[in-house]
Amino acid sequence: MNKIKTDIAITKQLATLEPLIGRDRQSQNPDHVYLSFGSPDPNLFPVKAWRNATEEVLRTNVIDALQYAGGKGAERIKSWIIDRGKLRNLTLDEDQILITAGAAQAIDFTTRLLLNPDDEVWVEAPTYFFALQSFHLADANVQMIPMDAAGIDINYIAEQLEDRVKNNKRIPKLLYLMPNFHNPTGKTLLLERRRQLAILARKYDFYIIEDDAYTEINFTEKHVPAIHSFAPERVLYIGTFSKVIAPGVRIGWIAATKFFIDKMKLFMLGPQTSPIVQEILGTMLEDFPIDPHVHELATTYRSKRDKMISDIQTYFGRTVTFHIPDGGFFIWLHLKEVVDPEDLLETAFNHGVSIVIGDSFYKEAPHRTCVRLCYSYCSEEQIERGIASLAKAYHSIIHNKNFHK
Amino acid sequence: MNKIKTDIAITKQLATLEPLIGRDRQSQNPDHVYLSFGSPDPNLFPVKAWRNATEEVLRTNVIDALQYAGGKGAERIKSWIIDRGKLRNLTLDEDQILITAGAAQAIDFTTRLLLNPDDEVWVEAPTYFFALQSFHLADANVQMIPMDAAGIDINYIAEQLEDRVKNNKRIPKLLYLMPNFHNPTGKTLLLERRRQLAILARKYDFYIIEDDAYTEINFTEKHVPAIHSFAPERVLYIGTFSKVIAPGVRIGWIAATKFFIDKMKLFMLGPQTSPIVQEILGTMLEDFPIDPHVHELATTYRSKRDKMISDIQTYFGRTVTFHIPDGGFFIWLHLKEVVDPEDLLETAFNHGVSIVIGDSFYKEAPHRTCVRLCYSYCSEEQIERGIASLAKAYHSIIHNKNFHK
Repeated sequence: MNKIKTDIAITKQLATLEPLIGRDRQSQNPDHVYLSFGSPDPNLFPVKAWRNATEEVLRTNVIDALQYAGGKGAERIKSWIIDRGKLRNLTLDEDQILITAGAAQAIDFTTRLLLNPDDEVWVEAPTYFFALQSFHLADANVQMIPMDAAGIDINYIAEQLEDRVKNNKRIPKLLYLMPNFHNPTGKTLLLERRRQLAILARKYDFYIIEDDAYTEINFTEKHVPAIHSFAPERVLYIGTFSKVIAPGVRIGWIAATKFFIDKMKLFMLGPQTSPIVQEILGTMLEDFPIDPHVHELATTYRSKRDKMISDIQTYFGRTVTFHIPDGGFFIWLHLKEVVDPEDLLETAFNHGVSIVIGDSFYKEAPHRTCVRLCYSYCSEEQIERGIASLAKAYHSIIHNKNFHK
Repeated sequence: MNKIKTDIAITKQLATLEPLIGRDRQSQNPDHVYLSFGSPDPNLFPVKAWRNATEEVLRTNVIDALQYAGGKGAERIKSWIIDRGKLRNLTLDEDQILITAGAAQAIDFTTRLLLNPDDEVWVEAPTYFFALQSFHLADANVQMIPMDAAGIDINYIAEQLEDRVKNNKRIPKLLYLMPNFHNPTGKTLLLERRRQLAILARKYDFYIIEDDAYTEINFTEKHVPAIHSFAPERVLYIGTFSKVIAPGVRIGWIAATKFFIDKMKLFMLGPQTSPIVQEILGTMLEDFPIDPHVHELATTYRSKRDKMISDIQTYFGRTVTFHIPDGGFFIWLHLKEVVDPEDLLETAFNHGVSIVIGDSFYKEAPHRTCVRLCYSYCSEEQIERGIASLAKAYHSIIHNKNFHK
């Protein structure tokens, strides 16, 4: 009687738990270029400051760092977040901030807080794939909203909402968006639209997750006020140290009402985010020269962006279009000819370059002619080789297609 | 039209998200004793080894540690887990292990993997409060199963299951238990019962979360095989470095089938558990003398346990009973007279000692006459003062009660 049953029920239940995008394939070729990696340039990690802070914690505070509660790390990080948030008009108290294991856990927690199965969530088209994954795990109903050069289409949203009310249909529970240097398009949401979104959220009774992961990678002199600043009770703001310090730190945060923060703390089941890392980061931030640091980031990443743009112009000519991002890590390339995304991925890989195909950023594969290119991780020399290889791959596909016509 | 609405729906939805236990109250009294803290003794943290490993990572591998993917940390930690697991008859491959942010995230992930709303989960009575919290967050239906001196009552389980089948009732989806040095009772599950549980799980088609958080704090020479070893496809085994190294490390793990591990990875939404901490811990474990270290832990904690037992005998006499734990951090004290738990908590606090009342370990407050005492965190001098104060508080309540009769 004790034979192993095949548990069909659990296998069926878990069948929906599938990754929406595949893992990046590793090439055997040492010269392979990964324009797919959305990672920072490791040469920009503030290694010296990190090392000093680590040594200070080892010297003065290692016992606190090793205990459940930690020391002053969390407090120091929060006070940095509060200060720095002023640039974006954020007005925050300590009890309105929850430190998380990166922006990923922040997306997870906000999703779990607000979404029940079948709740509707609106996102930009295209949007960040792990946000899609999170809403998918929550069994939410995702609707994708068009964007234009100034970000998500606010008129479309307003019309849709009005229409819902008129027809006595359900209003979405949540709008998820990346207002600054959006992943993957690099677009920034117009100030006036931020104000209007806040008004709509209040009027129609929905919530906004404002994922501001790329905000510190800013090539302009301007800081656009956060949506949170216009409706703090309606917006859950997500920040991270992954781009401005380093991803390995795995520290992000949620800024929201104390009511929401207290609820989300429960998802931690007791202990809080790594005290060791919080002690080091908190110590480091105490006297870290953030302004020259972000200036250095902007200078380097802008130069890489410019290099990528000039390479695209050189190798693709007029066969592509794109938006020039004012910050962040990405260029979202529109190919003028329709190609099969899997074919492009494979051909590009064989030409020595990895990219992320547009499908990954949509709920359903629309076979659009878009690819995400990341200029942050690779060197300028690699960027040129990568773009040249991608153009060669693209043109060879087009050539074959026309040849077979 | 843009006035702030009171969102009654969301407030109502989130009303069920309530902490099951309160936060430990801080006393102004510097001599206050916290027998409530379930923390390790910070004097036992392997500070020197941690410091050396940290310095080695800073010297050789800081860039990898600061990037998303990390370096060899995860691999080294997994190989330690595989080796060390052999003591408990665990047979594991690397792809059957998921590194988590402590056992807390492991409980969260396993809960989310297996439980749908209204699914039934069986737990020991009493059980770990953050496991209860996790099942509560999942809207699961928790049933508490009696324990005796040898752990969870296997005959009761077998009868219940048989009865369910006979009456065509649903079988529970999941059994959660702590087989070694159980929190809060300190009990260890008999080997034969482990074997039987594995047979029952296969026969009746349910899963087991085996939370083995305290396994390394072992006062005996014996390692009882894990339930996982008898039915690896049915058991999700949870381990942690919190007790054996330090809680601030925030590294735990789940061992389960590759199928389950791959599904749970999705909850991470991309990045994995802190690469920085994994690099340091992995480096440290490479040549960490684990046997003398756990011997030192056992010696110190056994001595504290003995001190607490002798103090209980001195100050409580025959007014209490308890089980003598063979490991772990806790004594679960049964008071012979019924007292109001809140009254006991308050009176004890005013007498200078904090405890956790029994109610925290049950689904519904049963007003049992139990308290959890933790001997791991406090010094032996504090243990004596704490127990003396608690006895005084208890006896004063009894005295008043009898006086008012």
